[in-house]
Amino acid sequence: MVGMGPGNIFDMTPRARRAIESAEIIAGYNTYIQLIPELVAGKKIIGTAMMQEVDRCQMAIDAAQRGFNVAVISSGDAGVYGMAGLIIEMILKLPENLQPKFEIVAGISAVNAAAAILGAPLMHDFAVISLSDLLTDWELIKRRVRCAAEGDFVIALYNPKSKRRVENIFEVQKILLEYREKNTPVGIVTNAGRNDERKIISTLENFTREEINMFSLVLIGNSKTFVKSNFMITPRGYENKF
Amino acid sequence: MVGMGPGNIFDMTPRARRAIESAEIIAGYNTYIQLIPELVAGKKIIGTAMMQEVDRCQMAIDAAQRGFNVAVISSGDAGVYGMAGLIIEMILKLPENLQPKFEIVAGISAVNAAAAILGAPLMHDFAVISLSDLLTDWELIKRRVRCAAEGDFVIALYNPKSKRRVENIFEVQKILLEYREKNTPVGIVTNAGRNDERKIISTLENFTREEINMFSLVLIGNSKTFVKSNFMITPRGYENKF
Repeated sequence: MVGMGPGNIFDMTPRARRAIESAEIIAGYNTYIQLIPELVAGKKIIGTAMMQEVDRCQMAIDAAQRGFNVAVISSGDAGVYGMAGLIIEMILKLPENLQPKFEIVAGISAVNAAAAILGAPLMHDFAVISLSDLLTDWELIKRRVRCAAEGDFVIALYNPKSKRRVENIFEVQKILLEYREKNTPVGIVTNAGRNDERKIISTLENFTREEINMFSLVLIGNSKTFVKSNFMITPRGYENKF
Repeated sequence: MVGMGPGNIFDMTPRARRAIESAEIIAGYNTYIQLIPELVAGKKIIGTAMMQEVDRCQMAIDAAQRGFNVAVISSGDAGVYGMAGLIIEMILKLPENLQPKFEIVAGISAVNAAAAILGAPLMHDFAVISLSDLLTDWELIKRRVRCAAEGDFVIALYNPKSKRRVENIFEVQKILLEYREKNTPVGIVTNAGRNDERKIISTLENFTREEINMFSLVLIGNSKTFVKSNFMITPRGYENKF
């Protein structure tokens, strides 16, 4: 299970690259596999569309049981909303003698990639929440947003919006406005580390007017976060020291 | 500002490596600089001990203003409790014509490195909290722990314990036990990705008996997290699909 990072060679660790290069079979979303054509050339691809995770993992496990070296790739970190959990669960349900050996390779996750582009918004405690309600009850997601707001966490929203799911982000905005100022900085990074990378710095009141899609990461500042020269910064608390 | 990742060459991105190699001057904690002797050989080092962050940043900025290419390195991700925020703040306070150009290079943060070692504990929403009360009010930290517990977030604790600060982790444990079962899985990874890496899987009731130090990352499971074959897994919610 390999985290490929944002989707370019320069932000992929040597450990991840070696895992992909040494694999005979690559499994992952087609969208992500296409980002690294030079690494997967000549290999067998188990490419599937979104939302076929279980099938893909099963095919990867079957191949590993037949003796192949398989890299199951996720964009970002395989361990953060990636494929690592599902595949480990499926492997550990097998009788021990049929379990293929596996290793998890961490990658730069979207929140870290986006933060580096926005400035330094993660200098203090933060919460990471996915707005996808395909597998998670929407009420639980909203409760988490509320708790993160109450704790004055910087909040990173994964999967903020998809073609079919456009309303969740507005509900989240409404909840957050109960707790934070209208002018709280909000950063949106779309396609971080890819050719069409886009950075927007907006406010809690206005950010839902910006283009947000399934390749966006939304970062909402805490009560101390500020914007200067188009950088978003959450101070750690050194102010009194200099 | 360069995030070097956990502290070995294999988990450092090519972008970070290139930034360090192309710098004439390296600034950072001595402890971390010593992890990458082959990359810093022959360079001028602005090495300082812990808690001299402001001095170190000032020296780095001075050198950059004199025309040198300076890499300010943090372990993990420069953007997560690293040096990125402080140095950007200090640079942006300067008159525009005196501001050196800068770039932030993300790295694998401790929470991601630890998760990969523990299994797949971050498959669902999580909160990242530092227990260091040097720069943050202890009451605020405790409030965040409480909010994260209420939201059933997986919780990653940075700086869980230092030589001078040994009690905070017990207070946190006590708060969490109000919200979560005694047998909630807790993972402790010390020196992730370094020679003396150590992984422990314990429970919320017992984890404070284990060795925890300033190089440890503590990961507390949510209500669904389970342990199997010494792996810690937080299910994403695919159970009904396979």
